[in-house]
Amino acid sequence: MPTLVLLRHGQSQWNLENRFTGWWDSDLSDKGIAEARAAGRLLAEKGYDFDRCFTSVQTRAIRTLHLVLHEMERLWLPVTKDWQLNERHYGGLTGLNKQEMIDKVGAEQVKIWRRSFDIPPPPLDADSPYQLAGDRRYAGITVPQSESLKDTIERVLPYYEGEIAPALRRGERVVISAHGNSLRALEKHLSNIADADIVGLEIPTGQPIVYELDKELRAIDRFYVSER
Amino acid sequence: MPTLVLLRHGQSQWNLENRFTGWWDSDLSDKGIAEARAAGRLLAEKGYDFDRCFTSVQTRAIRTLHLVLHEMERLWLPVTKDWQLNERHYGGLTGLNKQEMIDKVGAEQVKIWRRSFDIPPPPLDADSPYQLAGDRRYAGITVPQSESLKDTIERVLPYYEGEIAPALRRGERVVISAHGNSLRALEKHLSNIADADIVGLEIPTGQPIVYELDKELRAIDRFYVSER
Repeated sequence: MPTLVLLRHGQSQWNLENRFTGWWDSDLSDKGIAEARAAGRLLAEKGYDFDRCFTSVQTRAIRTLHLVLHEMERLWLPVTKDWQLNERHYGGLTGLNKQEMIDKVGAEQVKIWRRSFDIPPPPLDADSPYQLAGDRRYAGITVPQSESLKDTIERVLPYYEGEIAPALRRGERVVISAHGNSLRALEKHLSNIADADIVGLEIPTGQPIVYELDKELRAIDRFYVSER
Repeated sequence: MPTLVLLRHGQSQWNLENRFTGWWDSDLSDKGIAEARAAGRLLAEKGYDFDRCFTSVQTRAIRTLHLVLHEMERLWLPVTKDWQLNERHYGGLTGLNKQEMIDKVGAEQVKIWRRSFDIPPPPLDADSPYQLAGDRRYAGITVPQSESLKDTIERVLPYYEGEIAPALRRGERVVISAHGNSLRALEKHLSNIADADIVGLEIPTGQPIVYELDKELRAIDRFYVSER
């Protein structure tokens, strides 16, 4: 039975500061490092193992994966990194403290931008310090200026179908270390969750989620490793 | 001009204990972790950057690379891991404290096994705790029972020619995080060092070595990053 483990990165520095992060490359906090190590020990203790690993090109997800694999004595596994697994791009919200945002435009507007399925936040200012134009990791791709969850899904799922699903069909055990919204995209697809419901799915940091899949790669079961 | 950086992993636990390690997967010591971080900071300070990374499937080399890339804010770079970049397999010497070995068979014999170009140490005992038969990372390959430096070269160079040299010819900046003897193999080739001389080349842990190469990938210059 194909098994896929999804893991949201450990707490980042900007998670800790309650700031919208998106594509900004906020590193893990000390708590995030501890969460990642604990996830790795848990996976090893429960007998999980992998053949192939996928992650974004963002430090917090890559380091989480490395810390997990180190605890599992599996640093030698192949790891593929791709921007299509990045977090949703929060556009003009990037870098803002969530409370400041609420004070500025009201909780309702923040909730709309943050939680709507298909309404992106306003674009990132052209002169924002959070522009990524000079960031070599994105050479050759058009960095979005803002994304809705729908936009995020529309880049995550083609990557999943093209790169990850074939590995699962070959019988490889796969772990994906990624982000709240790139994992929402995958969970929506695997568990067939409605547009209106997916925005409410909260994915905790550092808690490995197991998907047991049928041959067509639809979910038979979904549970936290910590629960079984 | 193609540039290649070679890096021997930071001190491992078994380096610290003065034990023959070879293919055994001894992790970095605390000093080794500090050495790797310092190497990453040095490379960043001196303005080095990379497009592609290669390492062995051994934890001490992979972690060294990860610590370097983290300091350089380059964890997102593609990393290829291959057993052909592993340390020389020390056969029956694996796990032995070097002093114990000298006491047992004499310094001269140890020196012959350790430093001969083409004489491998005796094979690893079939019931040795250091046998790697059950280690999934080596599934599908015949794990050597002992290697001379010549044997090591004969697996490192085909990998270099097949995977690393093409990247250099494409103009990619490459870093290789590996081991004393897999790096000796590369240095012998790049600097055209004689069989009799290569065994005497000492490569310190955690000190990045730069090779500036001509179009045929022969060394024009070779220096430690710390020296310039």
